[in-house]
Amino acid sequence: MINESLLNPQSIVVVGGSDDTSKPGGKILKNILDGHFNGKLFVLNPKKDKVQGVPSCQSVAELPETIDLAIVAISAVHTVPVVKELAQTKNTRAFIVISAGFSEETQEGAQLEEELKNAVNEVNGALIGPNCIGVLTPTYSGIFTSPVPKLDPSGCDFVSGSGSTAVFILESALPKGLTFSSLITVGNSAQLGIEEVLEYWDNSYIPGKSSDIKLIYVENIKDPDKLLKHASSLIRKGCRIAAIKSGVTDAGQRATASHTGAMASADSAVEALFRKAGIVRCFGREELTTVASVFNYPKLKGKNLAIITHAGGAGVMLTDALAGGGLNIPAIEGQAHDDILNILNPGSSASNPIDILATGTAQQLGDVIEYCDTQMDDIHGMIVIFGSTGLSRVFDAYETIHKKMSRCKKPVFPILPSISSAHEEVDFFLSHGHINFPDEVVLARALTSIHQTPHPADEEIYKEGIDIQAIRSTIEEAPEGFLDPATNNELLEAAGIPIVEEGIATSKKELTTLAKSLGYPLAVKVIGPVHKSDVGGVTLNIKSETHLISEYRRMRKIKGVKSVLVQKMQTGTELFIGAKYEPKFGHVVLCGLGGIFVETLGDTSYGLAPLTFDEARSMVRSLKAYPVIKGTRGKEGINEDKYVEIIVRLSTLLRYATEIKEIDLNPLIGNKDEIIAVDGRIRIEAP
Amino acid sequence: MINESLLNPQSIVVVGGSDDTSKPGGKILKNILDGHFNGKLFVLNPKKDKVQGVPSCQSVAELPETIDLAIVAISAVHTVPVVKELAQTKNTRAFIVISAGFSEETQEGAQLEEELKNAVNEVNGALIGPNCIGVLTPTYSGIFTSPVPKLDPSGCDFVSGSGSTAVFILESALPKGLTFSSLITVGNSAQLGIEEVLEYWDNSYIPGKSSDIKLIYVENIKDPDKLLKHASSLIRKGCRIAAIKSGVTDAGQRATASHTGAMASADSAVEALFRKAGIVRCFGREELTTVASVFNYPKLKGKNLAIITHAGGAGVMLTDALAGGGLNIPAIEGQAHDDILNILNPGSSASNPIDILATGTAQQLGDVIEYCDTQMDDIHGMIVIFGSTGLSRVFDAYETIHKKMSRCKKPVFPILPSISSAHEEVDFFLSHGHINFPDEVVLARALTSIHQTPHPADEEIYKEGIDIQAIRSTIEEAPEGFLDPATNNELLEAAGIPIVEEGIATSKKELTTLAKSLGYPLAVKVIGPVHKSDVGGVTLNIKSETHLISEYRRMRKIKGVKSVLVQKMQTGTELFIGAKYEPKFGHVVLCGLGGIFVETLGDTSYGLAPLTFDEARSMVRSLKAYPVIKGTRGKEGINEDKYVEIIVRLSTLLRYATEIKEIDLNPLIGNKDEIIAVDGRIRIEAP
Repeated sequence: MINESLLNPQSIVVVGGSDDTSKPGGKILKNILDGHFNGKLFVLNPKKDKVQGVPSCQSVAELPETIDLAIVAISAVHTVPVVKELAQTKNTRAFIVISAGFSEETQEGAQLEEELKNAVNEVNGALIGPNCIGVLTPTYSGIFTSPVPKLDPSGCDFVSGSGSTAVFILESALPKGLTFSSLITVGNSAQLGIEEVLEYWDNSYIPGKSSDIKLIYVENIKDPDKLLKHASSLIRKGCRIAAIKSGVTDAGQRATASHTGAMASADSAVEALFRKAGIVRCFGREELTTVASVFNYPKLKGKNLAIITHAGGAGVMLTDALAGGGLNIPAIEGQAHDDILNILNPGSSASNPIDILATGTAQQLGDVIEYCDTQMDDIHGMIVIFGSTGLSRVFDAYETIHKKMSRCKKPVFPILPSISSAHEEVDFFLSHGHINFPDEVVLARALTSIHQTPHPADEEIYKEGIDIQAIRSTIEEAPEGFLDPATNNELLEAAGIPIVEEGIATSKKELTTLAKSLGYPLAVKVIGPVHKSDVGGVTLNIKSETHLISEYRRMRKIKGVKSVLVQKMQTGTELFIGAKYEPKFGHVVLCGLGGIFVETLGDTSYGLAPLTFDEARSMVRSLKAYPVIKGTRGKEGINEDKYVEIIVRLSTLLRYATEIKEIDLNPLIGNKDEIIAVDGRIRIEAP
Repeated sequence: MINESLLNPQSIVVVGGSDDTSKPGGKILKNILDGHFNGKLFVLNPKKDKVQGVPSCQSVAELPETIDLAIVAISAVHTVPVVKELAQTKNTRAFIVISAGFSEETQEGAQLEEELKNAVNEVNGALIGPNCIGVLTPTYSGIFTSPVPKLDPSGCDFVSGSGSTAVFILESALPKGLTFSSLITVGNSAQLGIEEVLEYWDNSYIPGKSSDIKLIYVENIKDPDKLLKHASSLIRKGCRIAAIKSGVTDAGQRATASHTGAMASADSAVEALFRKAGIVRCFGREELTTVASVFNYPKLKGKNLAIITHAGGAGVMLTDALAGGGLNIPAIEGQAHDDILNILNPGSSASNPIDILATGTAQQLGDVIEYCDTQMDDIHGMIVIFGSTGLSRVFDAYETIHKKMSRCKKPVFPILPSISSAHEEVDFFLSHGHINFPDEVVLARALTSIHQTPHPADEEIYKEGIDIQAIRSTIEEAPEGFLDPATNNELLEAAGIPIVEEGIATSKKELTTLAKSLGYPLAVKVIGPVHKSDVGGVTLNIKSETHLISEYRRMRKIKGVKSVLVQKMQTGTELFIGAKYEPKFGHVVLCGLGGIFVETLGDTSYGLAPLTFDEARSMVRSLKAYPVIKGTRGKEGINEDKYVEIIVRLSTLLRYATEIKEIDLNPLIGNKDEIIAVDGRIRIEAP
């Protein structure tokens, strides 16, 4: 587990420290020295007395009694004995193993890695790596790479599953002026991985003291539940998290029997997980560091922005990009419009964007910013675009922006495009600790992707009218594979999901008795084949006994059919709810309109079970076909509340029946009063 | 018109040249001096003999006999007399008017601008501006702003409708290493605008000598036809064009009576125009300059890319972004896979991305690039990601990449992320004239948006079986407003568009006679109301005379209904084709599936009339509902060729009937054999 010895050591030994700074052991020592580590620093190097001016011991025994942290940069085979000896004799409780040659390379390496982990676990220590670039905290710069970021307790906390990618992310972050509070690269994650770092951040979080900005680069999510729990907890405490999850797992490419299976790629599970947690998902380094830059400013408390500029074109591109992503640039009218015009030179525009013209002064700029901050309740933030044409210096304008940013209650985002011709002024501005966004559209995309990320979902599971005991006993008794219709219905009934009145007929007599009790019109479907329609196994709207019997006879001749399902015919619009079990993530639940919408247009939205009502409602409303559910010109809609409730109920069912690998309720038939499941397939596998 | 005096003057006078470089007249003179103009340079300033060391005349008369170009930076009111005098007495045939205070400010200014234009037109001269930042050519740096880009005949030609935006675009371009061949800012475009600059570029294009890269920033397209003509001509000659068109015109917000009107915003016209021309559309400065950077490399001749890297994470993010945008990163298998593995260290990966590991050498890197270039026919370009962890210098790798880039037949795109820790190496690499892409995802988005831009459409208009004379005479005789069904049919027939058999009945007798000749089943629709369904004015699938007569009686009672349209009932899938006339652009043609697809899902695609078969096919295939047209599991499709042909025919009809402001063919009924228009509305206005 992460401990104080790792994050705040009083003493460090660099095992394999060297004078050659082109080697990890040499470079990491140099970085620690350059970073002014305040504790005791040693090197373990059998060939030297001093390395880079640091005392070097020839053996572990020569080291002082207590060494908090060991940073190990020697070949893999020599690692385990040294780690054991340090743990056992020097009270070392934290290890960062830089060395490669473990599980990422060979079977023997994996064995070594296991021994390494056991050696650290035995003393209840912390292990980072192996095969990583190190750790950076406000106490020490324990990475062997460049660049080394500026450390600042309120800067970003950053955990990365890839060392080289972490380095390249720093390359993108540093020119922007982003600072860091910590960097942990987990390497092979033998003991501590991304999820454990998040857990530590969550458990150790102190409001006002801990950094509120967390960045993640992850290639492989090992424990989605843990990630969800701690990421959403951190966000509820006031943190803001952005993450890149790169690559799509092989699992996503598996062929599956159902539509849901084909539609829900493993990446939808990641997407759903991030949305549930409230993590802003990014797809590239530049995007991640821009979102992190926005995180350095106060939160927008609404979606209305004022744009203040002296250059029309940039304002128009910014407006296009913000509006395209769901943010508002409301027209400014009435008194506010007149008040702002009064501040400005003739010819200026006080609608939104507010154009103060090339002749606008720093004073006017400041007055407009202040007016938006104090006099306009319906404006939630300001974006200022101010460059230079090179005719004169713009120090006064940047000084004004700086002062207003410090004083305004609302966030002010600066776009200073003249990074080369006004680089002195921009540097002056940045020296106050601000972050500049040189490109308005890049900023707009970061703002809108933050805006589009929901708050973390509630954790409580909806259970009203759901008989969990009945669900469990049905599941436990069921054989693997596709369930028969009766078992399907038991499960859906236990979850409180309305199902169509129906019965099974294996003979003509059963058929006619059933028909009488249900009443016409009826629908008849074969039992057996998975793709019923493909074999001519579905007939709808049967209105007479003659028709019913003729269909029954025909269907009994279809291969594999011994009985048919007889249902009361439902009328309304076809809906669909499905789910697919994604290993480790749980169930990705999909919803949408049925028929062509789901099969051809792929118009579905998805979330991760269990779902709250808010999540399910947001899924339904994000469908392109939502207007059909809401009702369109002259056409009645579908009961949205009931649809949302069924999605939630199904997600609870799945939460308590992880044996269900695939489920398709397709179709459900809905109208303005009710929604009823008329066909479903459920496939289970033993856990 | 643009002339040699403007682009390649032998003599320049700066009118209003000053010693104060915080004034446009001072700064522009300084920029010309710094840019080493080789011709004769003068200043016109009544108060000075010398300005910045340049001889200054107190009056026009004192200037030498011939002055090719005048750059005017004095107040608007004084501009016209000086321009006139120069034109009349000094043979000046080119004018760049920097001064503001013309049509952009006041009515009087607009009058002055008109006089200015007339004065230049009188001598058949060229006028840039007023209200611009100037012109930059390889001969002189005639802009008053900073930064001034590096000039290079093979650099970008850049025309901008906004001065400040041009400056900010240069701020984004220069750090990337982009060079420029020319910059023209058109200001108020009194005489020469964006379109005229394109015309000049087109007419003066010399293969191998003219720059092949053209950039455009435009806020208002005044002459879409001219822009289309010259942009597509340039692209056919081998140029590559990227453009930003910012803002959506007011016209797009007009309320209109038809669905098409509501769906086709003015921005669809821009989008359609750019696609027709083959212009890569960008939405921000960073995006524009990245696309321009890609333009500096050879064209990709296919969509298969090899990624070569020593850092896994960046390769994965790049793969995700390229594949998401339609480019391929094909798996490398078989002999090629083994050959590449043989080049590399054990543990490397030769699938795609090719991972040469952190231990990979410059030699190996070069060998892999060369292998992809010479041995792999199915790879069309390579992307190399090579950074530094800060342990050692990477000069050798960058030297290798540079050499391979110069020799490879296929494009090699370099991603060198370590812009701070390896900035010396990156600078060394850039000094060879290359452009670096520090972020892989930003490069991927530029590559994919270039990939998604079609080639310019053919110019020939399809006329087979289209009776243009009949179209014209029908249009000329028709009254304004919505046409009656008979006139609708005349137009569609003249264009060779199949229409349903039908007739109009104003009495019961006409009705029954018509029914007999058409045969049941029939559809009946009211004539008069625009939204027929809303008033209960459409009944389909009438199978008996009794039913027909009862519907007729009911419909005649609907307000405004004096007659009904009786049609042979068609069966099949509903399709839709519509168009809206966009002032100056012409007709934006939309197509899609009918009913809910168009009304609720808005699943339409669009193009600008007249359309080629290729364009229409690409429109049909880009529909989300295209699988319905193609035919899905167990469901017959719709005749795609016929659909494409009708779209083309309609677009030709519109080309010769610009009086048509809106047209909706909704629905057309299609099956695998035929497609027939069963309802249409056409609204015309006098030209």
